[in-house]
Amino acid sequence: MAVNPTHLVERLVSQRVTLLLKDTRQLTGKLMGVDEHMNLVLDETDETTAEMSRHLGRVVLRGSNVVTLHSPQGTLTKPT
Amino acid sequence: MAVNPTHLVERLVSQRVTLLLKDTRQLTGKLMGVDEHMNLVLDETDETTAEMSRHLGRVVLRGSNVVTLHSPQGTLTKPT
Amino acid sequence: MAVNPTHLVERLVSQRVTLLLKDTRQLTGKLMGVDEHMNLVLDETDETTAEMSRHLGRVVLRGSNVVTLHSPQGTLTKPT
Amino acid sequence: MAVNPTHLVERLVSQRVTLLLKDTRQLTGKLMGVDEHMNLVLDETDETTAEMSRHLGRVVLRGSNVVTLHSPQGTLTKPT
Amino acid sequence: MAVNPTHLVERLVSQRVTLLLKDTRQLTGKLMGVDEHMNLVLDETDETTAEMSRHLGRVVLRGSNVVTLHSPQGTLTKPT
Amino acid sequence: MAVNPTHLVERLVSQRVTLLLKDTRQLTGKLMGVDEHMNLVLDETDETTAEMSRHLGRVVLRGSNVVTLHSPQGTLTKPT
Amino acid sequence: MAVNPTHLVERLVSQRVTLLLKDTRQLTGKLMGVDEHMNLVLDETDETTAEMSRHLGRVVLRGSNVVTLHSPQGTLTKPT
Repeated sequence: MAVNPTHLVERLVSQRVTLLLKDTRQLTGKLMGVDEHMNLVLDETDETTAEMSRHLGRVVLRGSNVVTLHSPQGTLTKPT
Repeated sequence: MAVNPTHLVERLVSQRVTLLLKDTRQLTGKLMGVDEHMNLVLDETDETTAEMSRHLGRVVLRGSNVVTLHSPQGTLTKPT
Repeated sequence: MAVNPTHLVERLVSQRVTLLLKDTRQLTGKLMGVDEHMNLVLDETDETTAEMSRHLGRVVLRGSNVVTLHSPQGTLTKPT
Repeated sequence: MAVNPTHLVERLVSQRVTLLLKDTRQLTGKLMGVDEHMNLVLDETDETTAEMSRHLGRVVLRGSNVVTLHSPQGTLTKPT
Repeated sequence: MAVNPTHLVERLVSQRVTLLLKDTRQLTGKLMGVDEHMNLVLDETDETTAEMSRHLGRVVLRGSNVVTLHSPQGTLTKPT
Repeated sequence: MAVNPTHLVERLVSQRVTLLLKDTRQLTGKLMGVDEHMNLVLDETDETTAEMSRHLGRVVLRGSNVVTLHSPQGTLTKPT
Repeated sequence: MAVNPTHLVERLVSQRVTLLLKDTRQLTGKLMGVDEHMNLVLDETDETTAEMSRHLGRVVLRGSNVVTLHSPQGTLTKPT
């Protein structure tokens, strides 16, 4: 059974996720919301770049900057 | 309960926010308005780059340049 | 009361504004007009880059190149 | 008989595929789903760059970052 | 009275204009036509880059490459 | 008689073609299909970059990455 | 009388034209066709870069890569 990408992201709300962005930054936080442009809201977000990491708290992210979304543990709960 | 990204930004009007832009500049100011393209109006804005910082006052920002929006204190008031 | 970004730009017509462009150029001139793509007309425009500055006179600017618009004095008249 | 690109990707669901991305990263995983924007869901995904490789598990990928999709073995099962 | 950017360009037909392009090239020629995408036709066009200049004659230019359009003398005739 | 670009590509199905991509990679393979976004399916594909070449087999390519399509022999059969 | 950019390109079919592309490559060939996205078909095409030139024969070019189109002789026949 095929998994729709947008539906999967919606079902990940309340889980921690890691986002890789086009500018090579990496954000890890608790997914709080998503819309049809894959704009995202994250809570308790940490930003990591090649040089540093810092705490950003709640973040709104424009979807056009996202490359991939995955679990910080390397495995996302597979919704059924 | 999922948080819609655009609605969250609208509810942040009158709070101070920090914007990270695609050209790596960072703007911090009081959010005065937003539209459906995530074009933004900021008041009392400070611009910070790797080399310098300066005061810009009121700024209109095209939404396509935004990567992330977060609180300058690292925590955004979570609207309920 | 929230400020709509496009309406703010329209109300700035006849004021001097500074534009920061994606290619890092900076234009300062008197705003003469704007359309729904944020294409702009400026009068008495000066262009400044890291290397030089020059007078361009009346300029038509494609909106897709704009990052931010602010007052050259660092404060825009806040329309009410 | 011509092969429609989107239909081919849909029929590859449950096969392992390799994706080359615009930022030069390479992802290999089991294709779990795809939508009309070529957003993709991969399972058991490995990421490889010029410098490193790592296991990401389940990944949601925005389609706009994809350059090519091919079989990790260099041959995709040709659906008939 | 506000000046519409597209209408201004249309009224500049038959005048000489200078275009600055995203790839930093500069074109100066007589404006012969424009469409709704700001695609342009120039006559007697000279191209100037940091390294060289050359005569191109009549040129069709895709509007998405344009940053600014101004008068080669630094002042555009202000249509009334 | 003018040749429509998309119709030409459709008529090239089953011929070998060479694609030059925006990231400077070059793909040569047998064209198996194309859609309205110029997404393409190639069979028996070889990828060549400045540093290396390798066999990829069947490839799905997103059309937005294509610069040009031509015959690997330097001449495409001209459909009539 | 203003010249519509797209109509001019259509009337140049069967003439030799030179295209400057966003990736700085230059293509010269006989224009065989064009569509509404300014996708083009060229015949007897020669590609020139800063490093080399080569014969490509018939080429299909995606319009989004085009910066300018002009006559290889520096003058396009002005259709009336």
